[in-house]
Amino acid sequence: MSGVETYLDEHFGAALEDLKAFCRIPSVSTDPAHADGITKAAAFVAERLARAGFTNVEQLATGGHPAVFGEIITDPKLPTFLVYGHYDVQPPDPFDKWKTPPFEPDERDGRLYARGVSDDKGPLLIPILVAEAYVRAEGRLPVNLKVLIEGEEESGSPHFEGTLQTYRDRLGCDLVISADGAMWRPDRPSMTVASRGLVAFEVTVTGASKDLHSGRHGGSAPNPISALSKLIASLHGEDGRVAIEGYLDGTSPPDARIIAAIEAADFDANAYYREIGSPKPDPIETGRELLIRQWLEPTLEFNGISGGYQGKGTKTVIPTTASVKITCRLIVGQKPDHVVDVVTRHLEARLPAGFALDVHRHGPGSEAFFIDPDLPALKVAEEVLGELLGQPPLRVAMGATIPIGASFRKHLGTEAFFFSFSTSDEDYHAPNEFFRLANFRLGLTAWAKLLRRLAEAM
Amino acid sequence: MSGVETYLDEHFGAALEDLKAFCRIPSVSTDPAHADGITKAAAFVAERLARAGFTNVEQLATGGHPAVFGEIITDPKLPTFLVYGHYDVQPPDPFDKWKTPPFEPDERDGRLYARGVSDDKGPLLIPILVAEAYVRAEGRLPVNLKVLIEGEEESGSPHFEGTLQTYRDRLGCDLVISADGAMWRPDRPSMTVASRGLVAFEVTVTGASKDLHSGRHGGSAPNPISALSKLIASLHGEDGRVAIEGYLDGTSPPDARIIAAIEAADFDANAYYREIGSPKPDPIETGRELLIRQWLEPTLEFNGISGGYQGKGTKTVIPTTASVKITCRLIVGQKPDHVVDVVTRHLEARLPAGFALDVHRHGPGSEAFFIDPDLPALKVAEEVLGELLGQPPLRVAMGATIPIGASFRKHLGTEAFFFSFSTSDEDYHAPNEFFRLANFRLGLTAWAKLLRRLAEAM
Repeated sequence: MSGVETYLDEHFGAALEDLKAFCRIPSVSTDPAHADGITKAAAFVAERLARAGFTNVEQLATGGHPAVFGEIITDPKLPTFLVYGHYDVQPPDPFDKWKTPPFEPDERDGRLYARGVSDDKGPLLIPILVAEAYVRAEGRLPVNLKVLIEGEEESGSPHFEGTLQTYRDRLGCDLVISADGAMWRPDRPSMTVASRGLVAFEVTVTGASKDLHSGRHGGSAPNPISALSKLIASLHGEDGRVAIEGYLDGTSPPDARIIAAIEAADFDANAYYREIGSPKPDPIETGRELLIRQWLEPTLEFNGISGGYQGKGTKTVIPTTASVKITCRLIVGQKPDHVVDVVTRHLEARLPAGFALDVHRHGPGSEAFFIDPDLPALKVAEEVLGELLGQPPLRVAMGATIPIGASFRKHLGTEAFFFSFSTSDEDYHAPNEFFRLANFRLGLTAWAKLLRRLAEAM
Repeated sequence: MSGVETYLDEHFGAALEDLKAFCRIPSVSTDPAHADGITKAAAFVAERLARAGFTNVEQLATGGHPAVFGEIITDPKLPTFLVYGHYDVQPPDPFDKWKTPPFEPDERDGRLYARGVSDDKGPLLIPILVAEAYVRAEGRLPVNLKVLIEGEEESGSPHFEGTLQTYRDRLGCDLVISADGAMWRPDRPSMTVASRGLVAFEVTVTGASKDLHSGRHGGSAPNPISALSKLIASLHGEDGRVAIEGYLDGTSPPDARIIAAIEAADFDANAYYREIGSPKPDPIETGRELLIRQWLEPTLEFNGISGGYQGKGTKTVIPTTASVKITCRLIVGQKPDHVVDVVTRHLEARLPAGFALDVHRHGPGSEAFFIDPDLPALKVAEEVLGELLGQPPLRVAMGATIPIGASFRKHLGTEAFFFSFSTSDEDYHAPNEFFRLANFRLGLTAWAKLLRRLAEAM
């Protein structure tokens, strides 16, 4: 083992304690009730960077939650890499489904359970610990490293583009490496080369101006739950695909290389439905079809619906409003603004008399992303993973969104790739999120190797 | 003025204080969090009955919230009337829409504002105060009076039939007079001669066994909000009517006398939609058509819908379940059990693969009710109202449900009619419920007159 690797191995216990301390902070960005957790998590990152040997550590004002910056400039002649991650986490509800409390990290069966441990606190801590190990064990990092950890990724990163624009000089680099992202499967190393975009909004339908008794008024008063149901039922066809005029404007047929990767993956659809605990829906026949839908087709998913009486038992009311939270995953060529426009037009055209419609956007959204397949750093990363895991990684797309790829290209003019040790089955947007401790260890070794190899290659 | 009327007039201030004290008790029957309010309200009624001179006052065990009984037996040879009312109230939410807190009665503009003041605390207090006035001012009531005040009306009266069965001997009477119910319009006296039945249930659709990330799984995992929307969108046709096979089984064409009353009413549909604060829906053209839908057609209304993320902002989740609370208003001939069966069959037949369906019933429900149009007591009541108000009351149906009519007929073998001084515009299932103080006063006078006339007529 090299000095760095020995250091990392000897300090693994302390690294794990760092991760647990980080996970105890409830940094939920989407809910103002957790403002204090955001403040504490940003301070934690800044303090940890400083302790690891980073300089110019600062909480950058963004207009929203702060982003945390730090850098180690070993030698201006060496290549400079910018590491991206996010310290904010998903809301933990439903609370009652957690086996142990979401913000009390619990180690069991070789896993650490906590909200945010896999997305993205564990993965983002790895490069910081590796940089520290280089400084302590070898006296210097083989590259220049900058770190940018934002606090609004789980809220759609509404201020991220502005942040890149404002601080573009300070963030200048040769390449961005994202510690966010996820290995596709626990049993097969993978490199993510494309991800879907995202746009989020909420649709509210209003009927009468006050709640009405459903006995006296039933049959004559407009029921917004009824209107909303009919409206949103019209958004998908029988095959489960989005059925909105203009939704695919700007898109092209899928990349043949990704289709080839899907065919190579030989994905088992039945195993997938067993894993998520549901019978197989009718329109999806094969693993190939399933992956095409997840990776290469846009979606419109309902994330929450609400209206009228929410308590126990029954209440004979016709409510004034009903609303649904929607996120659309976008493929290459779809513009978030245009997608919201065509959805709004679709709903407006079908809104029955007696109702008002409101479409409220959550953040600017982000376009889909794909990496230049010939990027040299991508090949270096694939070699590192291949050597550590004994087989070359699969190039995969992902259904989820990592908007930063497109943003870095736009504002800094640099490419970005994903090097994360989270795995996509780690329930990171569900109760009982976990991070495999073996992957935490593997990630430390891999990042150490990656930085050395990149220094040699570039 | 007779002695009773003078007494009522002189003690109106104290009556109003009684009503306010009653309204301060948060007796929400549908929510277990308010169990204490139920206990206090039942005790309040029992205490007030005893103080008014009622004997054998008792809280009857029902298997749910207690019903309160009391009686004044003036002379076994006189006719005996049983007064019905309910001390429980609707849930007060949404709290933020109340101008003054729901359980802090506020007097303004000749109205008393509080949850439950119109439905049914004010109207049920009237006959108790009138009985007290007879006892105090004239030494005796001109009739025998029994009182039965239940505590589960706003939860669908799940134990009411059992209560009538258990206590049928004690409840024996010549006629039931309900203090629950409502005048149809503030500007026109009316007698309710029919009401729709009710059955309540909740439909839950389940997809995967855990919450899923809507990016990774979007497009392949079953979304229960989507399935539920499509299912419930299929329950109504384009004209807003229920479109379920077998829904009208057992029904007959509407009673021509009620249609005639509707035509006499000359109801203004545009004024109705102005009042509830919504544009007119397309399928309803005229006031006649509107009243036919409210009074003579069954409904299926959505009272609440819920699923997935309910907080602020956005959460990229595909939830495991989505559910909707439903109440159906029934017309004469529709059986609650059959209605739930045909709705369940309709939904099951349309449930897509990938989902599970659960239909959870809230209580037994109740059939529609209509009063024998030739009931002599009905004519007496109409005369009393006509004399006090200067014009004969209109005979009307009501869209809402007063299940007790059918229940009393079934278990005690007695007819029931409605003599309530609540008015249907008093927002009794909405924020800012109120009771007109002029009608509280009028109700006292009218009940005093009614009891004397019934004693003479029967």
